[in-house]
Amino acid sequence: MPESVTPGPADGPTIDELTAAYRSATRTPSDVVDEMLGRIADRGADGTWISVAERSELLLRAKQLEAHPDPSSLPLYGIPFGVKDSIDVAGVPTTVACPEYATVADRTAPVVQRLVDAGAIYVGKTNLDQFATGLNGTRSPYGVPRSVFGNGLISGGSSSGSALAVASGEVPFAVATDTAGSGRVPPALNGIVGLKPSRGLISTVGLVPACRSLDCISLMARSVPDIARVLDVVAAVDDRDPFTRPRVRENADPAKLRIGVPDIGELEFFGDEPMRDAHLAARSRIGRDFGRVVTAPFGPFLAAGELLYQGPWVAERLTEFGDFLAAHPDSVLPVIRTIMDSGAAYSAVDVFGAQHRLGQLQAQVRRLWQDMDVLVLPAIGTTFTVDQVLADPIATNTMLGHYTHFGNLLDLCGAVVPAGRTADGRPAALMVLGPALADDRVLAVAGALAGQPVEVPAAAVRAPDAATLVVVGHHLAGQPRSRDLLEHGGHVLTRTVTAPRYRLLRTGGTSPVPVLVTAPGGGAAIEVETWRLPAAALPDILARSSRSVCLGRVELADGSTEIGFVADTSALDDEDLTDITAFGGWRAYLAAQ
Amino acid sequence: MPESVTPGPADGPTIDELTAAYRSATRTPSDVVDEMLGRIADRGADGTWISVAERSELLLRAKQLEAHPDPSSLPLYGIPFGVKDSIDVAGVPTTVACPEYATVADRTAPVVQRLVDAGAIYVGKTNLDQFATGLNGTRSPYGVPRSVFGNGLISGGSSSGSALAVASGEVPFAVATDTAGSGRVPPALNGIVGLKPSRGLISTVGLVPACRSLDCISLMARSVPDIARVLDVVAAVDDRDPFTRPRVRENADPAKLRIGVPDIGELEFFGDEPMRDAHLAARSRIGRDFGRVVTAPFGPFLAAGELLYQGPWVAERLTEFGDFLAAHPDSVLPVIRTIMDSGAAYSAVDVFGAQHRLGQLQAQVRRLWQDMDVLVLPAIGTTFTVDQVLADPIATNTMLGHYTHFGNLLDLCGAVVPAGRTADGRPAALMVLGPALADDRVLAVAGALAGQPVEVPAAAVRAPDAATLVVVGHHLAGQPRSRDLLEHGGHVLTRTVTAPRYRLLRTGGTSPVPVLVTAPGGGAAIEVETWRLPAAALPDILARSSRSVCLGRVELADGSTEIGFVADTSALDDEDLTDITAFGGWRAYLAAQ
Repeated sequence: MPESVTPGPADGPTIDELTAAYRSATRTPSDVVDEMLGRIADRGADGTWISVAERSELLLRAKQLEAHPDPSSLPLYGIPFGVKDSIDVAGVPTTVACPEYATVADRTAPVVQRLVDAGAIYVGKTNLDQFATGLNGTRSPYGVPRSVFGNGLISGGSSSGSALAVASGEVPFAVATDTAGSGRVPPALNGIVGLKPSRGLISTVGLVPACRSLDCISLMARSVPDIARVLDVVAAVDDRDPFTRPRVRENADPAKLRIGVPDIGELEFFGDEPMRDAHLAARSRIGRDFGRVVTAPFGPFLAAGELLYQGPWVAERLTEFGDFLAAHPDSVLPVIRTIMDSGAAYSAVDVFGAQHRLGQLQAQVRRLWQDMDVLVLPAIGTTFTVDQVLADPIATNTMLGHYTHFGNLLDLCGAVVPAGRTADGRPAALMVLGPALADDRVLAVAGALAGQPVEVPAAAVRAPDAATLVVVGHHLAGQPRSRDLLEHGGHVLTRTVTAPRYRLLRTGGTSPVPVLVTAPGGGAAIEVETWRLPAAALPDILARSSRSVCLGRVELADGSTEIGFVADTSALDDEDLTDITAFGGWRAYLAAQ
Repeated sequence: MPESVTPGPADGPTIDELTAAYRSATRTPSDVVDEMLGRIADRGADGTWISVAERSELLLRAKQLEAHPDPSSLPLYGIPFGVKDSIDVAGVPTTVACPEYATVADRTAPVVQRLVDAGAIYVGKTNLDQFATGLNGTRSPYGVPRSVFGNGLISGGSSSGSALAVASGEVPFAVATDTAGSGRVPPALNGIVGLKPSRGLISTVGLVPACRSLDCISLMARSVPDIARVLDVVAAVDDRDPFTRPRVRENADPAKLRIGVPDIGELEFFGDEPMRDAHLAARSRIGRDFGRVVTAPFGPFLAAGELLYQGPWVAERLTEFGDFLAAHPDSVLPVIRTIMDSGAAYSAVDVFGAQHRLGQLQAQVRRLWQDMDVLVLPAIGTTFTVDQVLADPIATNTMLGHYTHFGNLLDLCGAVVPAGRTADGRPAALMVLGPALADDRVLAVAGALAGQPVEVPAAAVRAPDAATLVVVGHHLAGQPRSRDLLEHGGHVLTRTVTAPRYRLLRTGGTSPVPVLVTAPGGGAAIEVETWRLPAAALPDILARSSRSVCLGRVELADGSTEIGFVADTSALDDEDLTDITAFGGWRAYLAAQ
């Protein structure tokens, strides 16, 4: 089979590659627009797009970008992208894959606006399972897309078109959504990368909701660093979104993280032995690439997932679509109507009961994160062909969501990366899950698994929680000012000595304190303690300490340098300074008095 | 009228008074047990208690305490307390004011256990509106308690007995609950202090739920410091409670807080002009005692309250009591049955719709806290007699909850303090509300309003979020190391000069830096900037700065002292030091080169 027809993701530029090409002026946004339209035309009516912007509009946008005085100020300069057609773009109908439901949006959703403001080029609206209800990609009047892996495989849904637009090389990234797995199953089935961030990181304003309490905007791209770059642009607090919350930055080193995996016996492949083999092969590499793999109980996750597809949340969809469904029953696909109608059978008591049960499971899962930093799972347990799904649409859909249903119910974030193929050529994928707001950690592990390391810019990393402090005198354990350290939750880390390059002086007056000064021409090792305490406590601890000391750097016997109390220069003005270096430390000096 | 029959809270010791008496050995726990039993006997069957421990048990407990080797280690040594009879105490029936529902508890609820472990004496179970459903106190087969203010006034509910046990001087504090206001309305009607902490601070394990998603353990006492002391004992993370969360400590100075109050026109007194007058009189004192009073929109709070009593949350009670109600309809009071039955009419769609609406209101209210630190309201808009409530049980109950219904839905914390009386002798009360986890702030304001200041122990205060940093050289805005400050989110606060007691030196070598040293015999005012940045960023900023500097104290021109960069003593060893004090600052020095 010639390489050009090998099923799998088509060639196509990543964001990083396009950016490099623009910087080196080997291509212009206009070139890229035409290449992209060429690729879209080549694939024809494959069910990827519901609407595509006019060539003239796209070229106008490209020309405007080319006239920009400072392209390097635009982090997504000239990068084309697609948008799932449940998200508003002003002037374009939002169909949610239901033509009769469609209305032309009068405002652009903030997630799209932020991309455009960053220099990206909006290309068009991508196909989806109607009302974003489904994980399989067969439920749209705008065509049934197929996986780029061929052989009649489904694209996955509901974000079917978003995944295909990326996997077929048309656009380097796309905006999608994820309620029960819609942002993770299609990337898994098309060999690309998907990120379902923590809910609330990306504004859902301008999104037609599926289950409002669970909906999450998601991203798809060809590499993990590309996804990270897009997330940096779109993650922002939006007061109009009730679920909004600020991103937490973390400089996670995958080699130091605890990777949780369930017992193999807890994994479900629905009898798909080649998929099981492919997963176990991918999983075996986790042990090789990371320091520590821990076994994670999978039961509480699955129990939460069962609540979703056997519980009352389907009724939440009726808050959005109930009136339309009642007025236009024939405008809705039969399978969608069947699902939606089932929501009406649930009572208020059912919802509260299920939410109570979910609360217990959330608490259980919160405790599991004490023993692992991320959980790595298969993204899907098996694949289906379009024919298989059409023959049994509900059961196949449930199997597709086995590993994804619980994600938003448990307030997790997650990324999907390709992880080889089955022996018969189908795609396998790993999913990295973390607790809410651990997006950086999840991306770091996903990047490591995919061999595409991501870096968190230093500027974005929050201040450390804890600091080490070297103390030499009144802050030593048992000495008067150690109370300040204890009150801030500090504890002694080590008892050690400095490098042999210090002198210890005692100030005069009624309240003498020992102060540490460097001895350029020699000096001694002075007894010290290192304490660990909240970094934010340092100002208070400094404010309460003697004016003769300040916080400088102290070199320890092992060659490391830590923050510690040293002499303030004003201490040297003291006329009654005594050199007590010979005692080797404040405690020994006191004992000798 | 002789003072002994003046209606209002009876004399009775506070926790602080009992503790002082024990310390001075003027009373023993045995004395106090007998005094308390005497008071309970004197009041007779007034509907306060559902069960009281045997005198022999109480005296045994008192004797055990008296034999304790270190009473001062028990923060509630010898303090008697009552427990609302929806909370389990091992060996005692939990009735929830429904005898047929009662079962003998086999475990003590953690909130009670923590009190007992702290030396408090469990006295008995207090009366409540059946199934904790009601705010009026008339809905119990164990008697209808009356307010200590007499004249046939209701006690308020559902924690009727807890409030009366405290207000009648029988116990210094009691444990109650608050779902829609049950922990705030009874204190308001009995002239005592009530605290409804942030949900999750006190474990609800061992509580028979009313609305599990809204239930909160609450506290009642005779003073704000007493409440604060009890909260310190019972606030604790409990992994068995899905809503558990750690307390946040805050050293709030009421004089510096922004006190929000609604426009008078937004307040509702249901035609009760004396209550309106009493409230306005109390409210006028807020302006006098605090620095800053701001007007707060009240609409979003009320809208959330309407969701509670006109919405589907009543169905949440059926998850607990539905089966019992179906099996034993005649065991439940008719008014409770009517309320509970109404829950069955709500659908799953109703719940999700109401939760979406609540989410919007929560977001709106979250933004309001940007402009105020607490919100002060009347605790109740009017009072009712028992006869008035029995004549119209639902409407009067709704009016009683006008200011309390929204509290848990919006995830607020709140305290109620007495605030004078109406001209006709009825109790008025103020309620202080704050956002979740602002309990210390709420208690501080409540204490100030009640003239009972509370102090947060320094040990419990968390490190400050932000620090001020004085910079003099490479960290000045625009200079190379200012990037470190900006990356941590720092911003310039002021451009100023030091007190005229410094010299500015320049180090030698290839990377000269300016360093600030004190000049004991005089010196100049040196140009500096103050920056505001996360306190936890200081270690990183110090680590990245020149080894010639450390973090000391810098006195500014206005006499204040802030943390700032000063010379490390090692800088003075530099043989190429140049005194550049005459330039007045690093920028002027650079400009002159």
